[in-house]
Amino acid sequence: MASTVYVEDMSVGMSRSRERLISEAEIALFGEVSGDRNPVHFDEAYAAGTMFGGVIAHGMLAGAMISAVLGEDLPGHGTVYLGQTLKFRGPVRPGDVVRSTVTVAEINLAKRRVTLDCVSVVGDQVVVEGQATVLAPSRAGTEKVARAA
Amino acid sequence: MASTVYVEDMSVGMSRSRERLISEAEIALFGEVSGDRNPVHFDEAYAAGTMFGGVIAHGMLAGAMISAVLGEDLPGHGTVYLGQTLKFRGPVRPGDVVRSTVTVAEINLAKRRVTLDCVSVVGDQVVVEGQATVLAPSRAGTEKVARAA
Repeated sequence: MASTVYVEDMSVGMSRSRERLISEAEIALFGEVSGDRNPVHFDEAYAAGTMFGGVIAHGMLAGAMISAVLGEDLPGHGTVYLGQTLKFRGPVRPGDVVRSTVTVAEINLAKRRVTLDCVSVVGDQVVVEGQATVLAPSRAGTEKVARAA
Repeated sequence: MASTVYVEDMSVGMSRSRERLISEAEIALFGEVSGDRNPVHFDEAYAAGTMFGGVIAHGMLAGAMISAVLGEDLPGHGTVYLGQTLKFRGPVRPGDVVRSTVTVAEINLAKRRVTLDCVSVVGDQVVVEGQATVLAPSRAGTEKVARAA
C-alpha cells in the first residue's frame, strides 16, 4: 500500500487514510517505545476512577498513526516531516478502530512545502485533529535540492 | 521517577527532563506500533541516498518521548493531554541520546490549563521543539471537576 505522491502530482483535497484496531497490545507497545507507563493507559482500576472511566490509549499513539499515513502514503516515501499540530478531542479505548486521514490543504510548489489537514476518528467521533507540514518528494529529486538548500 | 505535580504547586519555569538512547530496537518498535515502515527508518542503502545520509528515527518517536515526560513527570499522572505542536528541527540517528525537557510556560489556575514549552536535544542540537497544552491534576480532584465541565 505504500507509495510516493510527488509534489507535482498533488492537488488540494487529495487524501489518504489508514485504519488500525487499537488493542491492549498496541498500547503496551507504545508504553514501551515512549517510556510512558501512566496508569490511565494500563491500570483498569485506576483508570475507572478518572474522567475517562476506563483505560485509554496514549494520545500520541494516534499522532504516530498520522505520521505513518504521511510517511507511507501521502506524500509517502521521500517525505521530510517539518511540523505537526495535534488537538486531542476524545479518548481512544482498547478495541477501537481508529481511522486517520490526511488531506492536502496547501501546496507551495517552488519550496515543495505541503500542508495537510489531519484527522483521526473512531466511528463518527473525532479523536485527534491537526495539521502537518512536510517537504514533499519531487520528480526533480527532493534530496539533491534539499541538500543544496 | 513517575510523579504528579498538581496545578496548585506549579510555577512558570518549573521543568522536568527524560533521556533515552534511541537504538535500532526503538526504531523497529516505533515502526511496529505506528505502522510506519518508511525505508528512511529501516533501509541503510536507501537512507544513504537521502538528504539525511543514513537511517533516522521517526520524528514522532521524539514526540512520544515528550508525551512521556508530560504523562509521567510534569504534570504526571492525572494529566489530560489537550494539544501538542511539534517542529522537527533535525534528525535523530540510531545511537543518539535524546533528552526531552518540558517547562511550564503558562498556568491558568481556574481552568487548570497549563502550557508547557517542549524541547528535545541530541547534545547541543535541537531536534524537536514545540508546545503542549494539558489539563493538569488538581489537589481538589481533577477528575470530578473535569467530568462536571
